[in-house]
Order: sequence, then C-alpha cells, then structure tokens
Amino acid sequence: MTNKFKQRNSIEQVEEGIELAPKFDNKGLIPVVTTDYFSGELLMQGYMNDEALLLTIRKKEAHYFSRSRQVIWHKGATSGFVQSVKELLIDDDQDCLWIKVEVKGGASCHVGYKSCFYRKVTLGDDGEKENLTFTEKKKIFDPKKVYGDAPNPTKL
Amino acid sequence: MTNKFKQRNSIEQVEEGIELAPKFDNKGLIPVVTTDYFSGELLMQGYMNDEALLLTIRKKEAHYFSRSRQVIWHKGATSGFVQSVKELLIDDDQDCLWIKVEVKGGASCHVGYKSCFYRKVTLGDDGEKENLTFTEKKKIFDPKKVYGDAPNPTKL
Repeated sequence: MTNKFKQRNSIEQVEEGIELAPKFDNKGLIPVVTTDYFSGELLMQGYMNDEALLLTIRKKEAHYFSRSRQVIWHKGATSGFVQSVKELLIDDDQDCLWIKVEVKGGASCHVGYKSCFYRKVTLGDDGEKENLTFTEKKKIFDPKKVYGDAPNPTKL
Repeated sequence: MTNKFKQRNSIEQVEEGIELAPKFDNKGLIPVVTTDYFSGELLMQGYMNDEALLLTIRKKEAHYFSRSRQVIWHKGATSGFVQSVKELLIDDDQDCLWIKVEVKGGASCHVGYKSCFYRKVTLGDDGEKENLTFTEKKKIFDPKKVYGDAPNPTKL
C-alpha cells in the first residue's frame, strides 16, 4: 500500500525486528498519540498518512493528515504552535505511533486549551447523565483570534 | 448510531458542554489511548464500541473491542493483567478517549513487554534504514506461556 517504508513480511519482523514497517489502514492512515515531552500529558490523537510520517521523521516537526480537510497538515502552521518532535515510538504490530513533542507557546487544541483532553468522565455511573468535568480551567488562546473564519474541524 | 449515550446536537454541546456524546466511526468504534496512571507512560492504543465504553465506565476496568476477533475484550481476562481505570477523559470533538490505568502485575503488551511502544524510530533520516531501537530490554512475561496456542492478534 505504500512504498515509502519497508514491506511487512512476517509477524516476527513486525513485532521483534528493527525495521520500520508501519501498517496504514484502508484509508492509508495510521493513528498517532501525541504527548508533551516534559509533562507526559496526552495532548491530542491524530492520524498520519505515509507522506506525513516521512515529513515528521525528516523534519522533526509533527505533520498529520487532516481527515476533515483531506490534506497534509503541518501542525502549528496557522496557530504558530508547532510541535517539535523529541521522540517517535511505534507499537508492537506497528499500526500506531507515539510522538513526544515540545510545543512552544503551549497549546495543541483547536478549542484553545493546552490539551484536547480537558474533560473527565465520571466513572461508576451509567454514562447517561451530564457527567463531564472540566480539568483545564482556562483557555491558553482565543480560537476566534487565531483561526478567524476558518471552518471548525469538529464534525457532528 | 448509538442510543447508549447522548445524541450529538451542536458543536458547542460537543466541545464546550458537560454531556458525554462520543462519536463512533462507521464501524461503531472510538480510539482509546491507555496510559499508566502512575508513570504516565503510554501502554497501548485500542478501540471501544459503545458497549465496551459503557462497561468500562460502569465496572472501572478497561473493556475494548477487538478488531481482529470482533468481540468485546475484557483486557486481562486471559493474562490476568486487568487494567483498573483511575481516570477517563474525552477530547474536544469527543471522538477519542484517554484512560489512565493501574495494571497489577505490570504488562499491557501481548508480545510480553510492559508497554506496546517498546521501539523508538531514529529521527532525521529517511525512515528506510533499519532504524528501530528497543527501549525495553526485557519482557515481563513469556507470551507462549500466557496465551498458549491462541492466535496472534498482529495482522500483516
């Protein structure tokens, strides 16, 4: 499906080997977990295609594939909050990536918070009540000022 | 698509509200990022369907949906390494979950390592060389002893 990386030939190669042979799904994407290099906090979860992964490895700045806009997305190109990649790891079956990044300025969420994960679910109940609690009290930036009239990437 | 959680009515409700209204993809799944509650380390990335999410919220133990076996998967049922859920967060557009778990015994990877992310990609090159480095030196358990003849979930 991609000729940018090694072919996947055996489970041993994929799980125990030292060749990067990532698996892209039927849309050509691989999920990416992005954490803060210093605090360890989860900042966001996104997707890369083969080209975005190659750009990320080469330039050491996070490039994603935007599913809503269907383009390669150099994170921070609009907001200025570029993610400098300090480490990139891959999981056992090589179908998920983990990048540890430094974000100068400090925000990774288009809503304005530091992390996209700014709400906690109450555990133990039936999940049907109003059961989210905000874990971040204050936005780092005003998305209207930063993104202007650009369409909101959130889809219903 | 699911009647187990609130309906998604507006971007404001989804991004700024306190109702849990998760978005499941066209296969009925939502990605889940699982980190160690104490060390913050990324352990694995999996998927839940609506029923697995509800079970996780109610029982405070991680339940996933296995894409290879197409069943609800109570993590640790075979290996004993149950993931006790300490916190569950959801992202801005509510299409990704983050669980912080305590794993008694300590392993979350079917290959035998503590984390599924036991290899690091060398940055700055072209991604085509033998460029993975192991970050965990030693397996926590022997998968053959734990899983026996069960089929390996890794797909090529």
